[in-house]
Amino acid sequence: MIVPEDSLLKFEIPEIIYGLGSLSQIGLSAKRLGGERILLVTDPGLLVAGWVDESVKYLKEENLQYVVYDNVVTNPRDFQVEEGAQLYRQKKCDVIVAVGGGSPIDTAKGIGILASNHGRIHEYEGCNLITQPIPPLVCAPSTAGTGADVSQFTVITNKRANVKMTILSRAITPDITLVDPRLLKTKSSELIAATGMDTLTHAIEAYVSSLSWPMTDPHAIHAIELVAEHLVNAAKTKDMTALEGMSIACLEAGMAFSNAILGAVHALAHPLGGFYDIHHGLANSLLLPVVVRQNMEHALPKFAGIARALGAETRDKSIDAVAQQVPGQLQNLIAKLGLPTRLSQVGVDEADIPRLAQMAENDICMLTNPHCYMKAEIESMYHDVL
Amino acid sequence: MIVPEDSLLKFEIPEIIYGLGSLSQIGLSAKRLGGERILLVTDPGLLVAGWVDESVKYLKEENLQYVVYDNVVTNPRDFQVEEGAQLYRQKKCDVIVAVGGGSPIDTAKGIGILASNHGRIHEYEGCNLITQPIPPLVCAPSTAGTGADVSQFTVITNKRANVKMTILSRAITPDITLVDPRLLKTKSSELIAATGMDTLTHAIEAYVSSLSWPMTDPHAIHAIELVAEHLVNAAKTKDMTALEGMSIACLEAGMAFSNAILGAVHALAHPLGGFYDIHHGLANSLLLPVVVRQNMEHALPKFAGIARALGAETRDKSIDAVAQQVPGQLQNLIAKLGLPTRLSQVGVDEADIPRLAQMAENDICMLTNPHCYMKAEIESMYHDVL
Repeated sequence: MIVPEDSLLKFEIPEIIYGLGSLSQIGLSAKRLGGERILLVTDPGLLVAGWVDESVKYLKEENLQYVVYDNVVTNPRDFQVEEGAQLYRQKKCDVIVAVGGGSPIDTAKGIGILASNHGRIHEYEGCNLITQPIPPLVCAPSTAGTGADVSQFTVITNKRANVKMTILSRAITPDITLVDPRLLKTKSSELIAATGMDTLTHAIEAYVSSLSWPMTDPHAIHAIELVAEHLVNAAKTKDMTALEGMSIACLEAGMAFSNAILGAVHALAHPLGGFYDIHHGLANSLLLPVVVRQNMEHALPKFAGIARALGAETRDKSIDAVAQQVPGQLQNLIAKLGLPTRLSQVGVDEADIPRLAQMAENDICMLTNPHCYMKAEIESMYHDVL
Repeated sequence: MIVPEDSLLKFEIPEIIYGLGSLSQIGLSAKRLGGERILLVTDPGLLVAGWVDESVKYLKEENLQYVVYDNVVTNPRDFQVEEGAQLYRQKKCDVIVAVGGGSPIDTAKGIGILASNHGRIHEYEGCNLITQPIPPLVCAPSTAGTGADVSQFTVITNKRANVKMTILSRAITPDITLVDPRLLKTKSSELIAATGMDTLTHAIEAYVSSLSWPMTDPHAIHAIELVAEHLVNAAKTKDMTALEGMSIACLEAGMAFSNAILGAVHALAHPLGGFYDIHHGLANSLLLPVVVRQNMEHALPKFAGIARALGAETRDKSIDAVAQQVPGQLQNLIAKLGLPTRLSQVGVDEADIPRLAQMAENDICMLTNPHCYMKAEIESMYHDVL
């Protein structure tokens, strides 16, 4: 049997429109979803880069009213979601459009939740707690990393507790994503590297997840192959073919992880974001090699597949020998990208590790990791990369 | 550049719920889409097999009203679509549910078009002519063949002219598909073989299509691999693992062809369905080897990929030598399935060939084939397999 009798698996993604210039469809897409008054969620960087002006031009071409909410930061906050939702209601908006990276898109999803459901965003932390459909949501991602534009996740920081809240629900899958690789061109090399490592982490965690299945696996492997081929070049040269490759890698990884969910790298990375405001892609990159080493024995044949997708030599080698190459392959890639490799380099304090481990142990993403780690094991992983 | 500057590519599929027993979600799915009064479209075979009773049970569990339309045949007719649409309006339905193979699903799409758009179904033949969204549509496919449950296509026979009308529009992508491999178990071996060849044709045509791109290719290749692994076993033994493999192959091929469109095999097969009422999967199977031989030189590296996915030995062989194995691989597979290999075996008359070729030349599917064939070349292909 491929799937056990009592388990039903899902596969859901938004409508994808891909290509150089696909941002031009933003007005038409909002209109197609019934929009007349648009809330455009973005951040100040996108505004400076000119993408907000271009988006507004396309909204105007379709005679749409709009209001811009751009008070969004990395690791977006609960109060920003509430502020945006207030604006949505005040201006009687009917469609949300997000232009930006994971932060504006996650904020837009949070705004959507509050726009059609009652209470505060904190009440929806966890799985499937959203009862009312959110307003139509169109995304135009500006990084090839989060996959938030295709996923059923949003992660919002509870600012009072300095904790990241993961919200997972089919209700927050965006309706349409416009993947326009031109938007990546205005990002820094460091950001392309860090968000690319986020994509790679999505693909690897989805591939070894306990909820992976034959519909998610090919997406995960294809994403890993594309990262191996394009990420270094995308970060170093911003060559358009490499940026396109990373755009597709991000889509593929998003399709895999949104439906197979994630694992221990994300469980350990979330507290770093909530506690120290470390960039999410960078946090994943720091933790990926050590978690892969621990996960190895729990998913050996799958790690052999990952090694192959990353370009390992496999002829005349045992599955075990092939799989064991993955941590080294990852460290090579991270070195080529020039990303930090120790938690202490980004401000993590040894004294905080017990508290970080406590949060990681309870993170929703730990549930689908090939093995559930206890607090002591998690502390040891943080120590390994301190 | 991966994609030229002026071309936008789309990728859209329904929400997929997969697993043994997923039919049980049919009431909940219809309700989730706002349904209160359901039109259930099916055919007499499904009724006899008990799947309609089971479906109705799940609709009742959600307190949904329903009416059954089951006057559907292979190669569904224009008047059946009109009859179904009349019933939909008469009973004031709000959601359509299709339980069955390609014929009930294509009929349900046609009914949906007429339910929310004016005029006759003939007016929508072609690309993107539907202006109003159709009512919500839930599918539960009973064959692993057509991919109609994920696709943006419906094909309806114009009974007066004996011509198949292809309708292609994003508007007719179903909302939810419930892929329950149990439904395949009640189909005959011949039907599993013929519909499986339909799936293989979808995958091959999508892979070599001029609209294929890195988001559709992995689905096509995965479908071909699964057909190579499971089709013969599925048809001969109805082993559940093989049926599951074919269910996923059908989904994967559907995701590929719905977004990359099809080619000359379908262009040549459609007139056989319209003219002689030949089963669509069988028509594709008859034509696939000859069309592949003709297409070979126009997409050589892609055919090498197909040969590999079908299990060809590739070590130390040139791309050309690898690719040239495909027609033989297909003929072997068709022989193992015991399907007919000559058009004359299924009643095609030599005298009709000029007329068939005329229709094939104008078929919408010819536009995305790696090469556009003229009438004389098409006649020669029909003659080759007469």
